[in-house]
Amino acid sequence: MSKNPESVPLCPLNSAAATELEPLCIFGTGDLGRSLGQRLLQSGYKVVYGSRKPHSCGPLPPGTQAMSHSAAAQSAALVFICIHREHYSFLETLAPQLQGKVLVDVSNNLKKNLYPEANAEYLQRLVPGAHVVKAFNTLSAWTLQNGPSDANRQVYLCGNSAEAKQAVAETATKLGFTVLDRGSLSAARELEDFPLQLFPEWRLPLRIAVGLTAAFYFFLLIRKVIYTYVQKGDDISFRIMVSLANKVFPIVSLIMLSLCYLPGVIAAFLQLYRGTKYRRFPDWLDRWMLCRKQLGLLALAFAFLHVLYTLIIPIRYYVRNRITSSTILLIKQNKTSPFDSSMAWRSDSFLSFGILGFGLYVLLGITSLPSVSNALSWREFSFVQSKLGYLTLFFCTLHTYLYGWNTFLKPTSYPWYTPPGYLLCLIVPTVVLVLKLLLLVPCVDRSLTRIRQGWDRANKVDDGEKSLLA
Amino acid sequence: MSKNPESVPLCPLNSAAATELEPLCIFGTGDLGRSLGQRLLQSGYKVVYGSRKPHSCGPLPPGTQAMSHSAAAQSAALVFICIHREHYSFLETLAPQLQGKVLVDVSNNLKKNLYPEANAEYLQRLVPGAHVVKAFNTLSAWTLQNGPSDANRQVYLCGNSAEAKQAVAETATKLGFTVLDRGSLSAARELEDFPLQLFPEWRLPLRIAVGLTAAFYFFLLIRKVIYTYVQKGDDISFRIMVSLANKVFPIVSLIMLSLCYLPGVIAAFLQLYRGTKYRRFPDWLDRWMLCRKQLGLLALAFAFLHVLYTLIIPIRYYVRNRITSSTILLIKQNKTSPFDSSMAWRSDSFLSFGILGFGLYVLLGITSLPSVSNALSWREFSFVQSKLGYLTLFFCTLHTYLYGWNTFLKPTSYPWYTPPGYLLCLIVPTVVLVLKLLLLVPCVDRSLTRIRQGWDRANKVDDGEKSLLA
Amino acid sequence: MSKNPESVPLCPLNSAAATELEPLCIFGTGDLGRSLGQRLLQSGYKVVYGSRKPHSCGPLPPGTQAMSHSAAAQSAALVFICIHREHYSFLETLAPQLQGKVLVDVSNNLKKNLYPEANAEYLQRLVPGAHVVKAFNTLSAWTLQNGPSDANRQVYLCGNSAEAKQAVAETATKLGFTVLDRGSLSAARELEDFPLQLFPEWRLPLRIAVGLTAAFYFFLLIRKVIYTYVQKGDDISFRIMVSLANKVFPIVSLIMLSLCYLPGVIAAFLQLYRGTKYRRFPDWLDRWMLCRKQLGLLALAFAFLHVLYTLIIPIRYYVRNRITSSTILLIKQNKTSPFDSSMAWRSDSFLSFGILGFGLYVLLGITSLPSVSNALSWREFSFVQSKLGYLTLFFCTLHTYLYGWNTFLKPTSYPWYTPPGYLLCLIVPTVVLVLKLLLLVPCVDRSLTRIRQGWDRANKVDDGEKSLLA
Repeated sequence: MSKNPESVPLCPLNSAAATELEPLCIFGTGDLGRSLGQRLLQSGYKVVYGSRKPHSCGPLPPGTQAMSHSAAAQSAALVFICIHREHYSFLETLAPQLQGKVLVDVSNNLKKNLYPEANAEYLQRLVPGAHVVKAFNTLSAWTLQNGPSDANRQVYLCGNSAEAKQAVAETATKLGFTVLDRGSLSAARELEDFPLQLFPEWRLPLRIAVGLTAAFYFFLLIRKVIYTYVQKGDDISFRIMVSLANKVFPIVSLIMLSLCYLPGVIAAFLQLYRGTKYRRFPDWLDRWMLCRKQLGLLALAFAFLHVLYTLIIPIRYYVRNRITSSTILLIKQNKTSPFDSSMAWRSDSFLSFGILGFGLYVLLGITSLPSVSNALSWREFSFVQSKLGYLTLFFCTLHTYLYGWNTFLKPTSYPWYTPPGYLLCLIVPTVVLVLKLLLLVPCVDRSLTRIRQGWDRANKVDDGEKSLLA
Repeated sequence: MSKNPESVPLCPLNSAAATELEPLCIFGTGDLGRSLGQRLLQSGYKVVYGSRKPHSCGPLPPGTQAMSHSAAAQSAALVFICIHREHYSFLETLAPQLQGKVLVDVSNNLKKNLYPEANAEYLQRLVPGAHVVKAFNTLSAWTLQNGPSDANRQVYLCGNSAEAKQAVAETATKLGFTVLDRGSLSAARELEDFPLQLFPEWRLPLRIAVGLTAAFYFFLLIRKVIYTYVQKGDDISFRIMVSLANKVFPIVSLIMLSLCYLPGVIAAFLQLYRGTKYRRFPDWLDRWMLCRKQLGLLALAFAFLHVLYTLIIPIRYYVRNRITSSTILLIKQNKTSPFDSSMAWRSDSFLSFGILGFGLYVLLGITSLPSVSNALSWREFSFVQSKLGYLTLFFCTLHTYLYGWNTFLKPTSYPWYTPPGYLLCLIVPTVVLVLKLLLLVPCVDRSLTRIRQGWDRANKVDDGEKSLLA
Repeated sequence: MSKNPESVPLCPLNSAAATELEPLCIFGTGDLGRSLGQRLLQSGYKVVYGSRKPHSCGPLPPGTQAMSHSAAAQSAALVFICIHREHYSFLETLAPQLQGKVLVDVSNNLKKNLYPEANAEYLQRLVPGAHVVKAFNTLSAWTLQNGPSDANRQVYLCGNSAEAKQAVAETATKLGFTVLDRGSLSAARELEDFPLQLFPEWRLPLRIAVGLTAAFYFFLLIRKVIYTYVQKGDDISFRIMVSLANKVFPIVSLIMLSLCYLPGVIAAFLQLYRGTKYRRFPDWLDRWMLCRKQLGLLALAFAFLHVLYTLIIPIRYYVRNRITSSTILLIKQNKTSPFDSSMAWRSDSFLSFGILGFGLYVLLGITSLPSVSNALSWREFSFVQSKLGYLTLFFCTLHTYLYGWNTFLKPTSYPWYTPPGYLLCLIVPTVVLVLKLLLLVPCVDRSLTRIRQGWDRANKVDDGEKSLLA
């Protein structure tokens, strides 16, 4: 039941009647100003607009009025500044009227680092006598006008005056939002960067994915297409659309999946080597650990593509043609097609482990959805992501080993002395699985558990002070 | 950690001890009455039931007691009316006892517009001296009894008395719910319609989907099955199960996907033509824009079916039989199956773009999940839905063009002068893509950006008043 | 916008300035103690650590100081006990200093039922003069340090003193958490078991799934592989990887899907038989009803595997080999491959209903996601889960009937007198569908609706008291 557009939350501890008359002022009659005004009206506030041309400022929400800036400012204790930063300068002339008022800076910039200081800090500098609070800037005009949806109800604010922040927080609460105080006005820059960010935590994993994909595409292009063309004069360039993609995608997927689990293993060995968990990990390891979720989800995306590319194999013109040709050839040569039971075992196991691995992969992806992972206890989440995660890695690695089988023994697998792609992609997962296996050896496992419970080899901590395992 | 059934929220600002003794009254000992009573008990309230037959009213939560209506009403300031509307009339006789009390109307109807006035308004008319508050009706007896789950904790209320609403809001807060005030009692009808609504925002998209599906099914049935039967006397009616479905589903999917992006393009051209963004769009365009998400998700569902129908092609009896027959025929005619490299290119590109398009499609679907879209910043959400959305449309359109290739040149593609289905379904996406391309032309793009930043051709707005881009 | 690590919520009704000086004490300088301290600092609290060796207790958050336990305890009214339970005993000696203080027990155990009493109760016994509150233990050190994420913000607490609970609740609110009071300290055990639970509600469904899978695997192994080996001497053991799995998975999936709907049908007939809804269902039925969601999701997982196993059929070595061999055989015997139109109908219908059933299955799964189901009204949710659910069951059952067709008539379908697997798995869904059909007969439906609206055959309830349908 979260689709009410004009919901007006009741402040549970104030009489609504008393607040209905409190007038608020909005400078600026643009989109945001009008959306905000409409919403404030619906929550029972009186709204006054400040405008340079109060008589020709376009359509305003019915029930509000537009005045000159100075008249509007004097009629309210709280002024929302819904003006572009470029036009702030005129506010300097209003400093006397704005003295002691709470100014709410809701502005955003079009780019990061466009100006040397945050908009809110600039505003504070222009009107030193006012209490500037940065707030509401992470909301869209759409959310402002239609009210908070169930989960997207957070308003961040920051400012130097506790009273001013409290006044803004109360207004936000009445609009139905949840308020999170981010401290002093120096946090304004951070708040202004929020709406401009574009998947910052996905950048590194995406770069790794693109890099690996390009490298392996190029490598296989040489090994397969160019080698064949140079050596045999055959043009099999059509293969780059499906055959090559379906080699590159699983390779990248497996490598990225194992990259999810490698930092955990490295961290464990580092703790074992140091004999303590109280020393910080190197920065690169910390950063790596923080992007494991994104690595895993990209790996899942590649696995998903691999599955689709594999399943369309029998529909491909090339495959159908080849099967028909080989049948015709067999008949012309008066041969039969002998059945090899061990080949059937290998082919079926290969497919079966691939399917089971992909099934677990999807399960890991589903438990990464915010609403699902929030419903899990910590123990449940770590069971799925760690135990089932390693099982997924194991199945996918086995799938790849069964794919390769003994082809790595044949000299024809090394055109121009290059190893097959699947061999290269097996290195990282094999290392991760072997290291993980080492960590599961009882005595190693015991040491690690002791360290993680707070034991310290060098500087034995008093037992009575030992930390709790959360 | 959201699975606790009997969670009792602590009111953070009142001493729990003080509220434990406040008695509440419930009229009606049915399911809802008992669920509500149980929950109130767990939160520390004393609960008294009002019943016509206090001694034979069935099982009540232990710790509560049943009295006559008038006795029960006198023991509490707040009375929950858990009675069917049809039986409200007897409350008129209790008007003296209910004078000044807060009556909480929790009722729902079985159908919309069953009665001329809302239940709560009817109740207010029957007992004019009481303060009627409509509340809790959007919750199921199940939610009431087991407490709010993490996200489904909203209680809507409305009423004419601010104090009465506040009292109900406090009780709801103690039960762990979040309260949203919807204004005066005249909003009761709207609140009573909430639980009765059945996907209202899905109706139009569903009708479009069903209409398109039916139309194309019928069209292709005539073109393929009936034409073949009439012209050649062959009965290929079995094709309606898979072959026709697998032509209709992708057609409907592509048309619906392009219908998601058409209104945005139309709106942009309308703004360019009008030279302002301050004039409202026509109603049909507004309504169209509001159901884009549903159009897109239905398009994804059809694409999903198309993928499954495509992947089972090689398992079909008909396909296996045809392949075997054609191989046998080739051999009998002593022919081979020549390999056509450009055909392989086309087939593989066709499949590849389909897979990539579907992959992006699924990504768009995942980011439409409430919990995922709420975790995205506005810029991230619009990047995915707009940029990646157009890329999806482009891939899927290309996939369809590659499917058709040059068959539209052959006269045999026009039985009974009807064009092939894929040609028809390419019209809308092609138009959308061409119009979008026009909008990306630098000078057009610049004009549009200016308009969207508040510039107005007719009535040049003062720059200092310019709206902020949210 | 829910990714801010150091968000500090503003308490909307207290002046932040007034609370900034309130000092809090933390006993224990381990992981949890340090995370908690860091978070409290960021929210404006002064933090003092109590430690046995205040001068060598490792790295503490900057701005905090470590003292002896007794000195630290005296400086604050609220003491967080971040110590392992095994080391609680020394607190007994601090009883005088802790007299009247609020002690927050945040501890968890490594296993359930490790100790006869809950940690918090043990703490209360050691320091009877203090007010022990159990709280925060369901959060990980990670969540404590980084602040609540959008949905995972619930803190459970329990304790015997209302004032002490209120003080802890206020602190939790300032840290940005939502507080749910679970009653007296006797609830501490339950709270301590929360983080240790591992999918308790999934156990029964998982056991059913594993049991059914094992039973059918064994059954089909005997029927197919062992029978063939014994009777014909052929080793077709390779089939256990894909062929058997692809028979077992759909069987288990269909049985489990019908087990989702069986309890509802049983409950309806029980209500009809008893003529009332006011008698409790037997316990086994209640438990069964409560795990329907899990049963359904497991059924979906098996259906997903079945789809993948089916789609890879044409890539299998065995299948390709068999098709080539049969083509060669046909040619050698100079036969053609005649086309059977009814066979094409059956094959295509079989596949089509399977796809549509799976599509609906996935839809049911998506609406089970917490964020999606929370966005649905009760009527919408029950429409999807009940109406569409039965349609799914119907499609999947039809799919299975079409798969079997008339093979159950052939004597060769009964090796060693065992029936085919698909016949066995059709029993439960057929029963469910027939019973459901009976319930839809108008007169039965009317009786049931009356009973569910509160009518009671034995003890006719007064109409004016009739319950509301939620």
